[in-house]
Amino acid sequence: MSLNTFGHLFRVTTWGESHGPAIGCTVDGCPPGIALTEADIQPWLDKRKPGQNKFTTQRKEPDEVRILSGVFEGRTTGTSIQLMIENTDQRSKDYGDIAAAFRPGHADITYHQKYGHRDYRGGGRSSARETAARVAAGGVARAALSALVPGLQVTGYMVQMGARGIDRARVDLGTLADNPFWCPDPVAAEDWATYLDELRLSHNSVGAVIEVIAIGVPAGLGAPLYGKLDSDLASAMMSINAVKGVEIGDGMAAAALTGVDNADEIRMGPDGPEFLSNHAGGILGGISTGQPVVCRFAVKPTSSILTPRRTINQQGEDIDLITKGRHDPCVGIRAVPVGEAMMVCVLLDHLLMDRAQTGGQRGLIG
Amino acid sequence: MSLNTFGHLFRVTTWGESHGPAIGCTVDGCPPGIALTEADIQPWLDKRKPGQNKFTTQRKEPDEVRILSGVFEGRTTGTSIQLMIENTDQRSKDYGDIAAAFRPGHADITYHQKYGHRDYRGGGRSSARETAARVAAGGVARAALSALVPGLQVTGYMVQMGARGIDRARVDLGTLADNPFWCPDPVAAEDWATYLDELRLSHNSVGAVIEVIAIGVPAGLGAPLYGKLDSDLASAMMSINAVKGVEIGDGMAAAALTGVDNADEIRMGPDGPEFLSNHAGGILGGISTGQPVVCRFAVKPTSSILTPRRTINQQGEDIDLITKGRHDPCVGIRAVPVGEAMMVCVLLDHLLMDRAQTGGQRGLIG
Amino acid sequence: MSLNTFGHLFRVTTWGESHGPAIGCTVDGCPPGIALTEADIQPWLDKRKPGQNKFTTQRKEPDEVRILSGVFEGRTTGTSIQLMIENTDQRSKDYGDIAAAFRPGHADITYHQKYGHRDYRGGGRSSARETAARVAAGGVARAALSALVPGLQVTGYMVQMGARGIDRARVDLGTLADNPFWCPDPVAAEDWATYLDELRLSHNSVGAVIEVIAIGVPAGLGAPLYGKLDSDLASAMMSINAVKGVEIGDGMAAAALTGVDNADEIRMGPDGPEFLSNHAGGILGGISTGQPVVCRFAVKPTSSILTPRRTINQQGEDIDLITKGRHDPCVGIRAVPVGEAMMVCVLLDHLLMDRAQTGGQRGLIG
Amino acid sequence: MSLNTFGHLFRVTTWGESHGPAIGCTVDGCPPGIALTEADIQPWLDKRKPGQNKFTTQRKEPDEVRILSGVFEGRTTGTSIQLMIENTDQRSKDYGDIAAAFRPGHADITYHQKYGHRDYRGGGRSSARETAARVAAGGVARAALSALVPGLQVTGYMVQMGARGIDRARVDLGTLADNPFWCPDPVAAEDWATYLDELRLSHNSVGAVIEVIAIGVPAGLGAPLYGKLDSDLASAMMSINAVKGVEIGDGMAAAALTGVDNADEIRMGPDGPEFLSNHAGGILGGISTGQPVVCRFAVKPTSSILTPRRTINQQGEDIDLITKGRHDPCVGIRAVPVGEAMMVCVLLDHLLMDRAQTGGQRGLIG
Repeated sequence: MSLNTFGHLFRVTTWGESHGPAIGCTVDGCPPGIALTEADIQPWLDKRKPGQNKFTTQRKEPDEVRILSGVFEGRTTGTSIQLMIENTDQRSKDYGDIAAAFRPGHADITYHQKYGHRDYRGGGRSSARETAARVAAGGVARAALSALVPGLQVTGYMVQMGARGIDRARVDLGTLADNPFWCPDPVAAEDWATYLDELRLSHNSVGAVIEVIAIGVPAGLGAPLYGKLDSDLASAMMSINAVKGVEIGDGMAAAALTGVDNADEIRMGPDGPEFLSNHAGGILGGISTGQPVVCRFAVKPTSSILTPRRTINQQGEDIDLITKGRHDPCVGIRAVPVGEAMMVCVLLDHLLMDRAQTGGQRGLIG
Repeated sequence: MSLNTFGHLFRVTTWGESHGPAIGCTVDGCPPGIALTEADIQPWLDKRKPGQNKFTTQRKEPDEVRILSGVFEGRTTGTSIQLMIENTDQRSKDYGDIAAAFRPGHADITYHQKYGHRDYRGGGRSSARETAARVAAGGVARAALSALVPGLQVTGYMVQMGARGIDRARVDLGTLADNPFWCPDPVAAEDWATYLDELRLSHNSVGAVIEVIAIGVPAGLGAPLYGKLDSDLASAMMSINAVKGVEIGDGMAAAALTGVDNADEIRMGPDGPEFLSNHAGGILGGISTGQPVVCRFAVKPTSSILTPRRTINQQGEDIDLITKGRHDPCVGIRAVPVGEAMMVCVLLDHLLMDRAQTGGQRGLIG
Repeated sequence: MSLNTFGHLFRVTTWGESHGPAIGCTVDGCPPGIALTEADIQPWLDKRKPGQNKFTTQRKEPDEVRILSGVFEGRTTGTSIQLMIENTDQRSKDYGDIAAAFRPGHADITYHQKYGHRDYRGGGRSSARETAARVAAGGVARAALSALVPGLQVTGYMVQMGARGIDRARVDLGTLADNPFWCPDPVAAEDWATYLDELRLSHNSVGAVIEVIAIGVPAGLGAPLYGKLDSDLASAMMSINAVKGVEIGDGMAAAALTGVDNADEIRMGPDGPEFLSNHAGGILGGISTGQPVVCRFAVKPTSSILTPRRTINQQGEDIDLITKGRHDPCVGIRAVPVGEAMMVCVLLDHLLMDRAQTGGQRGLIG
Repeated sequence: MSLNTFGHLFRVTTWGESHGPAIGCTVDGCPPGIALTEADIQPWLDKRKPGQNKFTTQRKEPDEVRILSGVFEGRTTGTSIQLMIENTDQRSKDYGDIAAAFRPGHADITYHQKYGHRDYRGGGRSSARETAARVAAGGVARAALSALVPGLQVTGYMVQMGARGIDRARVDLGTLADNPFWCPDPVAAEDWATYLDELRLSHNSVGAVIEVIAIGVPAGLGAPLYGKLDSDLASAMMSINAVKGVEIGDGMAAAALTGVDNADEIRMGPDGPEFLSNHAGGILGGISTGQPVVCRFAVKPTSSILTPRRTINQQGEDIDLITKGRHDPCVGIRAVPVGEAMMVCVLLDHLLMDRAQTGGQRGLIG
C-alpha cells in the first residue's frame, strides 16, 4: 500500500515526483479564519531550498508555492488547502543511466520490488524533494499555531555532523543563521565547514543529528496510548528521507541512567509545576508536561556519491555505479527545516485532538 | 484525545487499567481460517508475566487470557477477536498514598493535567500493565504470520543494561532463555545479574536497550510515505511505556558514517539480490529489502524507586516521595516480549496492506 | 476486511457473537469527567431487550452491562471504556440444523463466501444481537451529550409497519411507551397490533420504517465533504442489520418536489435564523442548521420465518428451509433504540470534531 | 472539522472551490501497473460537463484533467496520483450579490455559521463543482477495476424526474445516450423533456432519482460491521450535493414487504448459487452476494432558481432573493456520472480491502 497522508485531524496528503511537473500537498482540517498567504509559507521553503551555498545541491529550484484552494481573501476557510510547487529544473538527462540500476542506499530496489513500475528519474516519489511539500504544510501549521498558542516556538538545528558533535556549553540559538549548517555552536560550525569540504572533494558524504525543540507547548497534548505525542513525533521524524533513529529527551542515552538520576523532580513554582531537569524531553506517558519538547533524529549520509559502489541492475547483472548529479554532501543540513515542519504539524494536530476531547480544560494543581 | 487503537488493517484496540477488574484488547482485521486457541497466546504472556525471578516485580498475576469472540472451533472467523485478562492481584492498598501525589517520571501529573480525573491506582491506564494486552495481540499476529509467511521469525533480546552493552562477538540467540534478561551474551548476562542486584538493594533502577530482529520478512512491505515500515515501527516502539528512543539498523550511529561506508552494496545471488551489509536494518525508502529487519529501542530506568525524590501533590505542595510497591528494577527485561509483539503486529499489518495494493506481486530482477 | 469500529473521534469498536460467551464494545475518545455508571446505560439496553412482549423474540437475555474500564469513581477518565454484556440464553440446539445451510435473506452465504469459516450459531457475528453493543455505546454518548449540550434530545419511533403508515396529524411523542411499537400514533398502534398478530400466526414477518429525530442540535456540526453529518448518519443507519434505505428530511420524496416548494425559507427571529419549513431535515451542505435533525430508515422484514423457503446448503444441494427459533415478527420494533443509539453517537462524534477545528466558535448573524 | 478524504485503502482527497484557480483530487492507494492516461479519465468528465444541452447549466467549463503525479510512462506507479482541473469560466460577477446573503437550500448559512469565513463565490467549496474531482477519481478507479475484475460494469441512469417515474417494462440501458437525461425509458425521456422545459421557463426546478447498478461484482466484498458495502455506498452517495435519500435493492419499499415475499430464494446453478430475486440489491450482511449491486439515491431540486424566495443576510436582515446565474433545472442529470464514480470508487476500495484480509480466497459451495 501507499499511504501519503499523515496526521489525525490536521491532515497532510502529499503528492508528486522529483521530475514530474509539480509537487504539492493538500492540508485538511486547518482551523478557519487563520491569516494565510503564500508569503507566510515561502520563507520556510526558502530555508530548505537547494543551492544556497556550496554545501547543498546546486540544483536550482525556486520552490515557489501557490495556494490553490482553502484560503479566501487572505484567511483560511476551514476547507482543504492545496499547495502546489512547480518543478522547474528537472534535467532528466542527469538520471538516464540509473533507469534500470539500483543505487545502493536508495529506494530504487525496494520500489521496484514492491510496485514493479517506478519513476526512476531522480528517485521519483522516493526523492527527498517530497519534503518540500512537508515544509509548505508546516508553514500552514505555523500560521495556525501562532494564532492559537501565541508563545509557542519551534526551532531546529544540527547538533552533530559525522562523529563531530557540538559543545552544549557553547550553544547559542541566535547564531543559527550565521553558518550554513543551522549549527548553534559557532566553533563546531567552523570545524564542520572544513570537514565537509574535504568530504565533498573526496566524493564522499556524511550523516548528521538534528535536534528540534518546541518551547511554549501547553501541558496536556498527546493521545495515549497509540497517539502519544512522542509516538507521533517518532513516526513523523522517521518518515523523513534518510532518518534512521529518533530520540525524545535523553533518548538512547536514557538506557544508561539510573532511576535516581533520571527522575525529573518537581517543585511548585509561582505559575505551576516546575521540573528541575528535562530528561523526559517534555513528555510523560505520551502527554506534554509543559516543559520544552525535545526531539532528535539521525540522518544517514547521502547515498548519492561519486565514489563507485557495487550493485546490480534490473537485469540482475552485477555492476559498479557512480551516482552523478548535484547532491548534498550532508542531507542533514536541509533536513533541519523538514524536522521543524514535522514538529509543528504534529503539535497542531495534537492541539486540535486535545481540544476535541477535553475542550482545552485542564486539571488544576494547587 | 485518547487513541487506544493501533494498526492500519490489523488493528488492535486495548482497554483496561492496572487495578480494574480486567484488561484486554480487540483484534480486528485478522485473516480468517487461522488456527488459534488460548494456548497459542499464553506462552507469550507467560514470557512477559511478572514474578518469574528476583529481577522482575513480585506481583502475582497469572495473566490468563480468554478468547471471547472471533474464533470458532479453533479457527479465526475474520471478525473481531476479543482477548480478556482478569486482574487478580490488585492490592490497592499499596498505592493509596499516591492518590493525590505525582510520582516523578510517571504520567500521574500529565494525566491529571489533561483529563482532570484519573485512576491513580498503580498508574491506572498509564501502567505498563497495559502491555499485556499488546503481547496477547502479538500472539494472534504470530499465529497469522506463521500461516502466511512460514519462515518469518521475530526475536527480541536485551543488548544493553545501563551503560553495559553486550559484546556482539559473543552473541548466541540460542542462549536467550538461559538468563533472566533475554541477553544473547552469556558473559554480559552474568555481569548484569551482579549489577542489577546491587541496584535493587540500593533502592535504584536502571535503563536498557532492547533489539528486535525479524528474519524472513519478504521484500516489499511498507507503505510510503507516511506508513513506512520504519515509521510504523518507530511509532509502535515509542508507544511502549518508558521508551525514549528508537533506531532502525545503525540508528543514531548512522550519523557518524560516511556515504562510502554506509552504502549496503548489492550483488546478485542465486535466489535474488544479496546485500553485503545491513546498515539500513532491512528497510530502504520505508520498504523492506528482504534482509533482516533490525529495530532497537531504549527504555528509561523504572521511575518507581524506594529512594525519595522531590515532587508535588495535587494541592500544589512540595513533598518528598518514595514509591513503595513491588517494582521491576529494570523494566527493560519485561519490555522484550512487548517489543516482539509490536514488531509482529506491524509486520502482519504491512503484509495485509501490501497484499491489498499489489496482490503480493513483485517486480522481477534478472 | 472486517471493520468493527465506527466514529471519527468518539469511536466504538464492537465484538462478540450471538452465541459466544459475551458481546461488548470499547468506547474510545469519550470526554473525561462525565458522570457514568451502569445505571446510565442499562435503561437503553432494557428498551432494546428481547422478550418484553409477544411481538419481540421470546429469548431471555437480561443484557446486563458491566463497565470494565475507563470509569473511575463514577466518572469517565478519558481513556477507553470497555462495556461487556454476557450472553446467558444461548440455546445452541435451536440452531444446529442451519450449520451448513444458508438461510435466505441472511448473511450466512456471504460470510461463508467471504471468510470460508463462520460461527453459524444464530448468525454469529452477523446476528442483530450485536446491536446491543451499539445501544450500550449510545448510553455513554447520551451521558456525554447531556453534559455538553444539555438541551439536546434524541427520540426514535416507528412511522410505518408494512405498508401501514402513521397519520402525522395524530402524532404524540408522549405516547411512545404506551404501545409495544414505539408508535407515536395511538390509532395506528392498535391497527399494527392486530396486523402483526396475524402475520406472526401465519408464520410471516414484515418490515418497518423508523424515524429518529434530534432536537437542540447546535448549528455547525458536520465535516464536509466526506464526513458530512448526513453522510455519517446514512452510513451509521445503513450499518444496522436489515436496513435497506436511509432518508434525511424529505428523503426519497425530495425527488418529487420543485425548487420553489423545497426551499426552506428563512426569516430572522429573536434568537437567530428561523426556518419556515424543514424539508432539509436540519442539514445543509452536510452541516447542521440548528433545526431538528430528521433521519428515517427502512428495515426489511425478519428473514427468519417458519414458512419454508427455497435455498441451498454448503454442499451445493437444493433444500427447503424453515428457520425455527424465537424470532421477532417485525425487527423494526427493536431497531428503534438502535437507531437512537447511532444518532447520539454520530452527534457526539461531530460535536467533538467541530470543537477540534473551530473551538466551538460560530459565525455571527446580525 | 472538515474531512475531504473518502475511502479506506483507495483514498480520494478532493480540494478546490468553484471559483478558485483550479479543483482536483489526490488518489492514493491505487494498484501499481495500471494503464492510465488523461484519455481514460476525460470521457467521464465530459459526461458530467456542463453546457451539453439546454437542460444543464450553460457555464462553459472544458473540464480538462491533467495527471500531475503517480503515473509514469502510461502506467500507475502505486504512489499518489494528483488530478487537476483548471477553472476557466469563473465569472465572479454573477455571484457578487450573494456575498452576504444566504440562499435558501444552499450551504451558505451553515458554512458561515460553522467556519465564520467562507468563499461565497458560487458556493465555493460547497458547490457541486467539487463533484468533477470525484468523477476524475472514478476514472482512475474504473481503469483499475477493469484490470482487476474485467467483467465488472457500472451504469447509472435516471429513474424518476419529479414525481414521474420510468416504466421498468420499457427499460433499455442501450438507449441511455439517446436522451439528455440518461433515462433508460425512451417514452419517459420524451415526457421529461417537455416537463423540464416548462419548469425551466417558469423559473423552477425539480428533483430526481438516480439508480446505479454494478454487474459482475464478485461475492465477498464488504467489511462488516461498519464498513459494510451498503454502509459505504450510503455514505458515498449521501455525500453528493443535494442527495437526501439512499436505497439498496428495494430500499424504503422493503418496509412494506413480508418476510415470505422479501426472501431472495436460492438454487444451485451450474456456476454456483443463483438467487431467484434481488430484493436485497446484491448485498447481505454488508457483503456482496455476486448478484447485481443496486443503489438508488434521491436528488432534491436545484435550490438556485429565478423565483424569489424569502431569506436573510449576514446582517440579520429579512430579504427576498433570486438566485441568478446559469443553473441546472434538474441537477439530477449531472448527478448520474457522479453516482457512477462513487460506486466504482467504493467497489475498488472494497476489492482491495477484501484482498488484504482474505487474499481473495473464497469459501466453497458444493
